[in-house]
Amino acid sequence: MKSFRKELWFNIPSRRAFINITPQVEDALRESGIQEGFVLVNPMHITASVYINDDEQGLLHDYEAFLEKLAPHEPTSRYQHNNTGEDNADAHIKRQVMGREVVVAITNGKLDFGPWEQIFYGEFDGGRRKRVLVKIIGE
Amino acid sequence: MKSFRKELWFNIPSRRAFINITPQVEDALRESGIQEGFVLVNPMHITASVYINDDEQGLLHDYEAFLEKLAPHEPTSRYQHNNTGEDNADAHIKRQVMGREVVVAITNGKLDFGPWEQIFYGEFDGGRRKRVLVKIIGE
Amino acid sequence: MKSFRKELWFNIPSRRAFINITPQVEDALRESGIQEGFVLVNPMHITASVYINDDEQGLLHDYEAFLEKLAPHEPTSRYQHNNTGEDNADAHIKRQVMGREVVVAITNGKLDFGPWEQIFYGEFDGGRRKRVLVKIIGE
Repeated sequence: MKSFRKELWFNIPSRRAFINITPQVEDALRESGIQEGFVLVNPMHITASVYINDDEQGLLHDYEAFLEKLAPHEPTSRYQHNNTGEDNADAHIKRQVMGREVVVAITNGKLDFGPWEQIFYGEFDGGRRKRVLVKIIGE
Repeated sequence: MKSFRKELWFNIPSRRAFINITPQVEDALRESGIQEGFVLVNPMHITASVYINDDEQGLLHDYEAFLEKLAPHEPTSRYQHNNTGEDNADAHIKRQVMGREVVVAITNGKLDFGPWEQIFYGEFDGGRRKRVLVKIIGE
Repeated sequence: MKSFRKELWFNIPSRRAFINITPQVEDALRESGIQEGFVLVNPMHITASVYINDDEQGLLHDYEAFLEKLAPHEPTSRYQHNNTGEDNADAHIKRQVMGREVVVAITNGKLDFGPWEQIFYGEFDGGRRKRVLVKIIGE
């Protein structure tokens, strides 16, 4: 069994954004040389998500509106977590709804995807440097 | 390390449905001959989920009602994604709430499950042929 | 490829609680001797979650409040699942929102985590003995 590890770095200027990171994960897979196995992609932070869905601007807007209605950023005083001096309790909730991580099958050296699957980094508390971990195991 | 890959095909006539696919995943596991490892099960589409929960009709009704209240199909004009000519923005949202994929442990050649765990295909935009990927790695 | 399996047992007296189980998962990883690979952690029950987020009491309160508003326990008659004699339909829903399982990378014999990542057991229908499965594959 072989394993491969790579960190992707992001610094999103806005509080929230969705970034298609499929090309970076494909690069990591090529570097690994692994032909059959699994790739795990997850943020190393707890106010961000990695998820798989469509790269369509209207949908990204709909996700933003859905999540902000479900767990609004303001008033920040509605969340006990924000008594710690943080203002990002909503981001911890939004990340749970969208999920932390994805595991993707690798077949013949490629991400084993259907036609529309794309890997996204979902940032819910931006304005600082954050990492995504790509870990691949296989042969 | 061994790996095994199989596609399961579905064509759900209704817009939404929950289908217990545990027997098909168990068939794939037997075909693979793998005794220890992980199985990844995921739709190859972005308006469907694979998740693990109870095979109880009342609960499946409750999931349907919960998701439809959270992200209603209509009016379809409430979602920007539907400006593309699609009417399935709600399905992209419902799939995120229920999750994309499951990873299940394989022990002694079996799905390592508690007494009530069952694998479901959750369709949120039916009426066409769709695939589920079963990928197994191990020994 | 090596594999390792361990069950963690819990009996949460209250209906709902969030328990940091990172030390127990680290213990299992040490016992396994595996240096590079993946660990899967999942409840073997369908009214509980394993998820990764912050070990901060205010946030745990915020999760509880968010989930109870989204899928209230009462009136229990609002859920068809509860016609079976159960009263835990809400727990099956809460578990889907928080997710079933986590997969964590193992690098150099350690959980490959960012600074704040902690693994939690989320109980939504306590008062009985339940298990969490830790399954590790790698080398």
